[in-house]
Amino acid sequence: MNARASSVLGAAEALSNAVTAPIPGSRKIYVQGSRPDLRVPMREVATGDAAVAPGAGQNAAIALYDTSGPYTDPEVSISLTQGLAPLRSIWIDERTDSVLLRDFTSKTTREHNADASLVHVRFPKLPLPRRAISGRNVTQMHYARRGIITPEMEFVAIRENQRMEAIKDAGLLQQHSGQNFGALTQPRITPEFVRAEVACGRAIIPANVNHPESEPMIIGRNFLVKINANIGNSAVTSSVAEEVEKMVWAIRWGADTVMDLSTGKQIHETREWILRNSPVPIGTVPIYQALEKVGGVAEDLTWDLFRDTLVEQAEQGVDYFTIHAGVRLPFIPLTARRVTGIVSRGGSIMAKWCLAHHKENFLYSHFSEICEIMKAYDVAFSLGDGLRPGSIADANDEAQFAELDTLGELTREAWKHDVQVMVEGPGHVPMQLIKENMDRQLEKCGEAPFYTLGPLTTDIAPGYDHITSAIGAAMIGWYGTAMLCYVTPKEHLGLPNKQDVRDGIVTYKIAAHAADLAKGHPGAQIRDNALSKARFEFRWTDQFNLGLDPEKAREFHDETMPRESHKSAHFCSMCGPKFCSMKITQEVREYAAAHGVDTATALESGMREKSDEFRSTGSQVYRPA
Amino acid sequence: MNARASSVLGAAEALSNAVTAPIPGSRKIYVQGSRPDLRVPMREVATGDAAVAPGAGQNAAIALYDTSGPYTDPEVSISLTQGLAPLRSIWIDERTDSVLLRDFTSKTTREHNADASLVHVRFPKLPLPRRAISGRNVTQMHYARRGIITPEMEFVAIRENQRMEAIKDAGLLQQHSGQNFGALTQPRITPEFVRAEVACGRAIIPANVNHPESEPMIIGRNFLVKINANIGNSAVTSSVAEEVEKMVWAIRWGADTVMDLSTGKQIHETREWILRNSPVPIGTVPIYQALEKVGGVAEDLTWDLFRDTLVEQAEQGVDYFTIHAGVRLPFIPLTARRVTGIVSRGGSIMAKWCLAHHKENFLYSHFSEICEIMKAYDVAFSLGDGLRPGSIADANDEAQFAELDTLGELTREAWKHDVQVMVEGPGHVPMQLIKENMDRQLEKCGEAPFYTLGPLTTDIAPGYDHITSAIGAAMIGWYGTAMLCYVTPKEHLGLPNKQDVRDGIVTYKIAAHAADLAKGHPGAQIRDNALSKARFEFRWTDQFNLGLDPEKAREFHDETMPRESHKSAHFCSMCGPKFCSMKITQEVREYAAAHGVDTATALESGMREKSDEFRSTGSQVYRPA
Repeated sequence: MNARASSVLGAAEALSNAVTAPIPGSRKIYVQGSRPDLRVPMREVATGDAAVAPGAGQNAAIALYDTSGPYTDPEVSISLTQGLAPLRSIWIDERTDSVLLRDFTSKTTREHNADASLVHVRFPKLPLPRRAISGRNVTQMHYARRGIITPEMEFVAIRENQRMEAIKDAGLLQQHSGQNFGALTQPRITPEFVRAEVACGRAIIPANVNHPESEPMIIGRNFLVKINANIGNSAVTSSVAEEVEKMVWAIRWGADTVMDLSTGKQIHETREWILRNSPVPIGTVPIYQALEKVGGVAEDLTWDLFRDTLVEQAEQGVDYFTIHAGVRLPFIPLTARRVTGIVSRGGSIMAKWCLAHHKENFLYSHFSEICEIMKAYDVAFSLGDGLRPGSIADANDEAQFAELDTLGELTREAWKHDVQVMVEGPGHVPMQLIKENMDRQLEKCGEAPFYTLGPLTTDIAPGYDHITSAIGAAMIGWYGTAMLCYVTPKEHLGLPNKQDVRDGIVTYKIAAHAADLAKGHPGAQIRDNALSKARFEFRWTDQFNLGLDPEKAREFHDETMPRESHKSAHFCSMCGPKFCSMKITQEVREYAAAHGVDTATALESGMREKSDEFRSTGSQVYRPA
Repeated sequence: MNARASSVLGAAEALSNAVTAPIPGSRKIYVQGSRPDLRVPMREVATGDAAVAPGAGQNAAIALYDTSGPYTDPEVSISLTQGLAPLRSIWIDERTDSVLLRDFTSKTTREHNADASLVHVRFPKLPLPRRAISGRNVTQMHYARRGIITPEMEFVAIRENQRMEAIKDAGLLQQHSGQNFGALTQPRITPEFVRAEVACGRAIIPANVNHPESEPMIIGRNFLVKINANIGNSAVTSSVAEEVEKMVWAIRWGADTVMDLSTGKQIHETREWILRNSPVPIGTVPIYQALEKVGGVAEDLTWDLFRDTLVEQAEQGVDYFTIHAGVRLPFIPLTARRVTGIVSRGGSIMAKWCLAHHKENFLYSHFSEICEIMKAYDVAFSLGDGLRPGSIADANDEAQFAELDTLGELTREAWKHDVQVMVEGPGHVPMQLIKENMDRQLEKCGEAPFYTLGPLTTDIAPGYDHITSAIGAAMIGWYGTAMLCYVTPKEHLGLPNKQDVRDGIVTYKIAAHAADLAKGHPGAQIRDNALSKARFEFRWTDQFNLGLDPEKAREFHDETMPRESHKSAHFCSMCGPKFCSMKITQEVREYAAAHGVDTATALESGMREKSDEFRSTGSQVYRPA
């Protein structure tokens, strides 16, 4: 290990146990794909056997989608100064359409790398950048349109299926009416389906050739709804090590992508550390760094400077860029009468630039040139909604929809270059106006994936905006949004700490999963059924482990029933032993089973004597085992 | 104060400051009705002046709906052993259709009152019970159907309007497009409208003549969505004092009604203390106490014993009863193949009774007799959904809907007696199946108010079920549910503590308010607009005070910006001073104002020189004031 690097990393070189310990009750498994180096990580939750009839017998282990990367695999040794293994390198190499450059293209990067004063914060083994061979295009969309199924596509197909072939063993299918479960009998998601979705732009696989460490994932409305977590040091500085740990913490709880919104002095170096150690795609808002370069004076931004920033970040491996190209000059006045004006940082920066120069937004006028950069590295667009509403009063207004229509125009332009695109959405929107956002986005943006921030369904709960927005997020996810940007409890009030990040992510996993259920994603309900079956059978530990936050569930249970023996208690602390309705239901079932008849039959044939018998035997909750 | 009472009350006689301190930034006000003793309490939040153009000038105070009762009025001295002032007594007296009895009718009550060993836990000044004169009917529905507007109806009309006449002064109406705001120009809710809604059964005013301390409120889908909080000591005993404090705590955060689900030994005495000190309607599930009386053996329940329990609680003043009369014998087998069987406590008790006796549920067969009791005191029905689904897999199944249809039949029966009815609903329901619940309830139950528990939209988040359920609650509230029963983070895991109750209530206030917005309730958006305007104008303290939880908002802000001077900082800790988009928007507006032109005009007429000027003056965020 580089001694200088250790000075900046400090304790983070051995990441704290809290972020790398295996998730309780889970073990890492890998599902083998069609080639030896294609192994899809999952998290398997073992479950106990049902102790009582009629659910008695073995419960199958459940394989869950796993975003936590190698960190939660005890077989993998982690070294932040080495970075993660570049699992996609061979795949990228094999395509023979890109080359390793001898040096970085970006002026900023070269300056940073030449600056001796930055050695102590620099990632020790900087990989050389890779770029498409002149005239070639290395985007997943480009391959998809040419009929090529890449290893990345196969990877996400396996990943989305969550080992559905195991489901039939789980004995969970027979126990419900089947009304939400129709598509379960066979996996819907094939590599060819993935290819087709990427080809038509309905889904993206953010996968910069300079970020080979990433485990491929897909964003599109025919796949699991994804969530993004933002990290970033903002004005108050935090160390490089802290930023890496934040990323690892976020993916542990389920972040599918992470946006690095840092604005500090070591923004370039921090990003490198994050990328080299991130198994999930990393997104950024390049205008933030561009603004740093001009000392925070928006008017001084230029296309050349911005262009260099794009190349700088693309050669580091950023997988998607938020580009606020839809904040057009004529739309800015439409915000003047709003209750909360322009609330997007990027949007307000561009608005200020446009007004000061009285010129069209340079991101809009140089959009084709941006596409040329994107396709040389496979960076996906996240077309920013710089004019999104910042309050209920401003929802769905003229400014917002004028920008959205422009984002549709830009989507079509990007697609001409085979560049992958998703489109950002609001914001603050009352429930009755949410669907219009989704419908209009689908229509105007040709079904490109929608990526929304919430939306918050009311403005009146500062301190609880993870909740005000989870309501809107779940709904818009159901309607078709492909990725949800999380909101933490600190939204509008302060910088999220670790607990806030956890709360925000778990809340958004809830919203995303509720949307998956509502959309009928194949397999989504398996986890609900497994957890509910565990609950019904008083398998407390299984109930905790199958949940989104096993540690919190156990901690809450411990508050009233702390002893380990309570984890097999056949009642819960809510109602106590006498009033437990689950227990009573079990007794009803046991009675039916013991008498060799189905309860229904017993009743239908009016066997009153059996009922008398049931009564005379008593039916104490504490029947001896 | 009674010395014996003090022994049981202990510290609660002086309720802890945390539950009675005035809510930060608010003062209690009363809006005068048509008679001197009709004064409707509200909570007024004063707001500061906008410091900067163009929002500069005075912001009107906002009057908010207030459930916290006299506890938050510093002018009122509280004595738990005295109970609250019986504000409705004169109104009830004036109707001359009820009489004070010389003793309690219930056998249980008389036994308890004669038991010397209970003196130390008994409320010291037991009021005599009141009952309708033979042949008379004292329900609000009965009056409404005869065309009488009671003081209770006028009270709720004023309360629902939240002093809308003040709105026009607030300068908030001009600042948005008005698309969600159409009905604002005059109050929609008149006393006559309230009467008509109660008469047709679309709304109820739970107002037992033996609970004159309650401040009238209304539950119906053309009014603000209400929330209920459950309290109760369950198996692990808690003291009488703790239970009263729980109620006061719950209403402080916004509970519109409180259900007392206690199951302990002093259930009768605890309920008396709660009722005498509660300004909100109290609901119960009488079958719980009935079961206590037969030692927890469901099979031993009888109609006579249950009947006496109803009278016992009605004469104490309980405002609504959950009655599980829809758990009919033929429906029980429909639950046998469910993943989670019967999860309602009351439902499982009645199912056990039905199976043991192989008889129809006695609550169903004696329903008319129950109605006779209800109308003698004006207790409202909350028709229990004993067969509600306890998991996503069981949602909207045959058992659930068979019971719902029966609840419709029972609603019509109750209405024949002019008895007020609401209908309970689920439970666990994925988003795409929520609307069917509401539509079917409206159709089958003649638009009687729906009162739902969540629903939880996924089963996979133990520890976060306030959130999984708030999503469903907001949606079903929008679709038409009139009252939402809260769920705390401890659901499925343990007994909620004070913090859990606060989290559960605030979360449900969010869901209810989001639903009010979506339904277009007149005036609901005023609060959002006021808060967003405060946010935009960096009036931090106003932003906190207008929110649902001022204390938490301030605490979060303090974490990153602790100094009092930060409360007037013209930026926030999220982005720091340089990147504040709100600030930039203000600059854009200031520019427009300073140049005597509207921003839109400036741009439309293409005044490039003005733009140059803007640029040359710089536009630092820290412009000297």
